[in-house]
Amino acid sequence: MAAVAGEPEVIRDKAAMRAWARRRRAEGKAVALVPTMGFLHDGHLSLGSVAAAAASASGPVAVVVSIYVNPSQFAPTEDLATYPSDLAGDLRKLAATGAVAAVFCPPYLYVRAGAGGSGHETWIRVERLEKGLCGSSRPVFFRGVATVVAKLFNIVEPDIAVFGKKDYQQWRVICRMVRDLDFAIDIIGSEIVREADGLAMSSRNALSIHRSLVNAKTAALNGNNHSQQIKDQIVQTLAEAGGQVDYVEIVEQESSVALERMDRPAAICVAAWFGKVRLIDNIEIQTHHPDGGASI
Amino acid sequence: MAAVAGEPEVIRDKAAMRAWARRRRAEGKAVALVPTMGFLHDGHLSLGSVAAAAASASGPVAVVVSIYVNPSQFAPTEDLATYPSDLAGDLRKLAATGAVAAVFCPPYLYVRAGAGGSGHETWIRVERLEKGLCGSSRPVFFRGVATVVAKLFNIVEPDIAVFGKKDYQQWRVICRMVRDLDFAIDIIGSEIVREADGLAMSSRNALSIHRSLVNAKTAALNGNNHSQQIKDQIVQTLAEAGGQVDYVEIVEQESSVALERMDRPAAICVAAWFGKVRLIDNIEIQTHHPDGGASI
Repeated sequence: MAAVAGEPEVIRDKAAMRAWARRRRAEGKAVALVPTMGFLHDGHLSLGSVAAAAASASGPVAVVVSIYVNPSQFAPTEDLATYPSDLAGDLRKLAATGAVAAVFCPPYLYVRAGAGGSGHETWIRVERLEKGLCGSSRPVFFRGVATVVAKLFNIVEPDIAVFGKKDYQQWRVICRMVRDLDFAIDIIGSEIVREADGLAMSSRNALSIHRSLVNAKTAALNGNNHSQQIKDQIVQTLAEAGGQVDYVEIVEQESSVALERMDRPAAICVAAWFGKVRLIDNIEIQTHHPDGGASI
Repeated sequence: MAAVAGEPEVIRDKAAMRAWARRRRAEGKAVALVPTMGFLHDGHLSLGSVAAAAASASGPVAVVVSIYVNPSQFAPTEDLATYPSDLAGDLRKLAATGAVAAVFCPPYLYVRAGAGGSGHETWIRVERLEKGLCGSSRPVFFRGVATVVAKLFNIVEPDIAVFGKKDYQQWRVICRMVRDLDFAIDIIGSEIVREADGLAMSSRNALSIHRSLVNAKTAALNGNNHSQQIKDQIVQTLAEAGGQVDYVEIVEQESSVALERMDRPAAICVAAWFGKVRLIDNIEIQTHHPDGGASI
């Protein structure tokens, strides 16, 4: 994408962010939000391009990328302090895309505890979709994600928000929250960006997971819709590659309900440990009913 | 208040409501929301006037009253089906105030459950303030209130919202939610409207509660800041009047943390049973530090 917008405006204050977005709206632009935790790679950068493209189809758009490492989605056992960051590098990469009008990088977003227990205490839970998959080993993760995203929505007041489908469960949780709480925001799920060899763009992912998912999809499209057989194959493939599966689940795409048979649009979601690194990946499969009817 | 606005516009659809509010904003008006469950009395009607007055101080305002009996704040043991309603009467009363531009009365607000567990599943909890007081005997109540109010905020997108301070804990829960989730909405707590004899405007309230609260306030301002003594006196007064106290609590105003001594701005909150009717009331007391310094 050619650099046309130049340097994005860097905004650190909530009120200034909201005022900026309202000015863009008053100018007749749609506002598109891309929430990130920074340390950006090409997968993130593609989200901004998706936001610009999706919105510009219906008129001018101002893309806002937020960079904020959200403490509430880390458990006490998880290492928030060592989460990587590189704000200067992030700003340089975003400027180079030419697609980003503003970067929102607040130093903090939560009220700190004061006297009388007055700290942050409001939490949003998406009670079914937050369970299972990554929610099983990270019980506070989606509560933290839903809550910080709602805060960002109320600060930026975007018309559009873009989430990567690499974090499949997160994307579905956000879609469900937006529906249930009536946010006036279109959520766009951006396709996974992969390296030439198929590796999902992430600092922690493994080619073997992707290969196992592609093989599973091929098997499913060739008629094997038995979820357990497919899952067993993935577990075995990853074990042979030196990984240990945390979970592999085959779920109905929208509801994340487990499927015994892939007889409707399905997603295979995998998390696995390779040494001390936990990797996730997923693949969507548009399977059909065995009677040959339309997909649901 | 003189009738100037005439008949309010009656809106039942979410998208139509949001579009209506956005048009008012585009005209340069602030939008003020007054959420109710209908069956309006003068206490409710005063909220609309408060909204109009508060907003008009800084420019023109469009007041929206919502009427929706929120099922999610009723427990299965509580009687949602017999909650009183009188929409025609409500509309007549609101038209007579001349202060209300629109009435939002949706037939439903929650997604119904479909296949694959796709019904409403997103809940907002204000984890400390929802506990104690009315939350002790009504454990899902404030979860339901916070969630439906967030939905109404996202549908109407108001600049201002008005809540009656008769429902003291509810008002504080909403203030905390708005702070924690960064809603761009000014919350106004409207003072309790009372009959000439001091009875709070409610179909279910009792003069004896109000009298006991006024006596307690007098005692506190005369120097008795021992919460337990004040509470014992209220329990005894209400027992003599034939009531049975569900709770009487003396709390710090903003945090709702219990106070042993009323040495800072306090609220006394009471719930009591008179026969099969549960009544609530409260009073605020601006007490001072015993050292004669400024109040906190």
